[in-house]
Amino acid sequence: MTAAASLLAKLFDGGDRELVSHLSVDCTIFGFHAGRMKVLLLRWKHLSEWSLPGGFVRKDEPIDRAAERVLRERTGLDDVYLRQFHTFGGTDRREAELLPAFRAMGVEPPAEHWIVSRVVSVGYVALVDFEKAGLTPDEFSEECRWWELASRPRLLFDHDEMVALALETVRTQLDYLPLAANLLPEKFTMPELQALYETVLGRRLDRRNFQKRMLDQGFIERLGERKTGGAHRSPYLYRFVTSA
Amino acid sequence: MTAAASLLAKLFDGGDRELVSHLSVDCTIFGFHAGRMKVLLLRWKHLSEWSLPGGFVRKDEPIDRAAERVLRERTGLDDVYLRQFHTFGGTDRREAELLPAFRAMGVEPPAEHWIVSRVVSVGYVALVDFEKAGLTPDEFSEECRWWELASRPRLLFDHDEMVALALETVRTQLDYLPLAANLLPEKFTMPELQALYETVLGRRLDRRNFQKRMLDQGFIERLGERKTGGAHRSPYLYRFVTSA
Repeated sequence: MTAAASLLAKLFDGGDRELVSHLSVDCTIFGFHAGRMKVLLLRWKHLSEWSLPGGFVRKDEPIDRAAERVLRERTGLDDVYLRQFHTFGGTDRREAELLPAFRAMGVEPPAEHWIVSRVVSVGYVALVDFEKAGLTPDEFSEECRWWELASRPRLLFDHDEMVALALETVRTQLDYLPLAANLLPEKFTMPELQALYETVLGRRLDRRNFQKRMLDQGFIERLGERKTGGAHRSPYLYRFVTSA
Repeated sequence: MTAAASLLAKLFDGGDRELVSHLSVDCTIFGFHAGRMKVLLLRWKHLSEWSLPGGFVRKDEPIDRAAERVLRERTGLDDVYLRQFHTFGGTDRREAELLPAFRAMGVEPPAEHWIVSRVVSVGYVALVDFEKAGLTPDEFSEECRWWELASRPRLLFDHDEMVALALETVRTQLDYLPLAANLLPEKFTMPELQALYETVLGRRLDRRNFQKRMLDQGFIERLGERKTGGAHRSPYLYRFVTSA
């Protein structure tokens, strides 16, 4: 029996005592860099399908900490934008789609076990710089990698719905929250900020309106300095207002 | 033993088999009418404190259905704005604050039972017309009534936090979603719509900007008719665009 298989067998044999039964977290981790947007996916051992990184919740662990743990374990990143966006609680949510993988590992879950009967999952969304992430698959995954959003494969469970809603949430909240704070250098130009917004929204924005809107919100402030070294007229530098 | 006490005793004695353990739903039900905004609260039998209406989730019930059931059972209302807004999952969430009430009913829960050790709750927010609601307390409550938002009592558990976040959610989403569709007559005037927005937001709005913003969003459309019978110049009537 492999290490993954014995871990799994132990989980079904009382090892879930430390976990909050019927509950999981799933993280839609969007990666940004140089105008590109990706999503982090895992492929289960013995399966060809991909899914979002996720995990169960320990009894001594707030759900937000569980999501932070998943993010940190998969990407090595901490202290980035991570926020709960929706809880998925249909009656058909269970890990039954993984039965072929469990069986390939030589593990047969008890038929009534909560993991294979009903799991409610709290969905989190994170925004990271994919160049800064150091990826590690979890114990049950063969691969862990970034996919271009547009060419991602169909996902297991209801994870396609999760990605779609995570994306919608980020897009509609872009103007309310300083989501972008950890995706830009400490001092940045207005064109850099606009390029990030355009990547998230998937469309071009009007330069003049964008600048006005950003300054009206009060999340960023203009510094006394300009960026130097470019081919064009040196643009002003901005930064996020602390604790906004 | 009262009916409530034996129901409770049964719940702790295996009656929770039908429930998704460690999970509940709580509903922040805001009531609106004639420029007033209230919130629905329950008072537990044998306790002086108030809390939000809520309930557990049956194993054969999606979480959204559980919230609809709570709303319907407490208010008699169906088919109103009801939406999940946040899941509360701290490690200190449990019904232990109810132990005095349980004991007053002659019921001592098993110390390790999930109900008194950890409950993750999915928060829902509903907007209703409080004149249309027919209130019914649940089995464990002595009273069920509307409170003016500003003069509501301090609530049990983390329910004050729930109300605050529900209010913030409704306020920030007012411009994205046709929340108000069930709080106005089928045909309404712009001043009626504006008065509702001002009640929710708790502040005055500029008439001209409001009208422009509402029409730009595309959720409402102007009808060919005007409202008659008022003292002033007859205002146009509007309606929500179907399925917006």
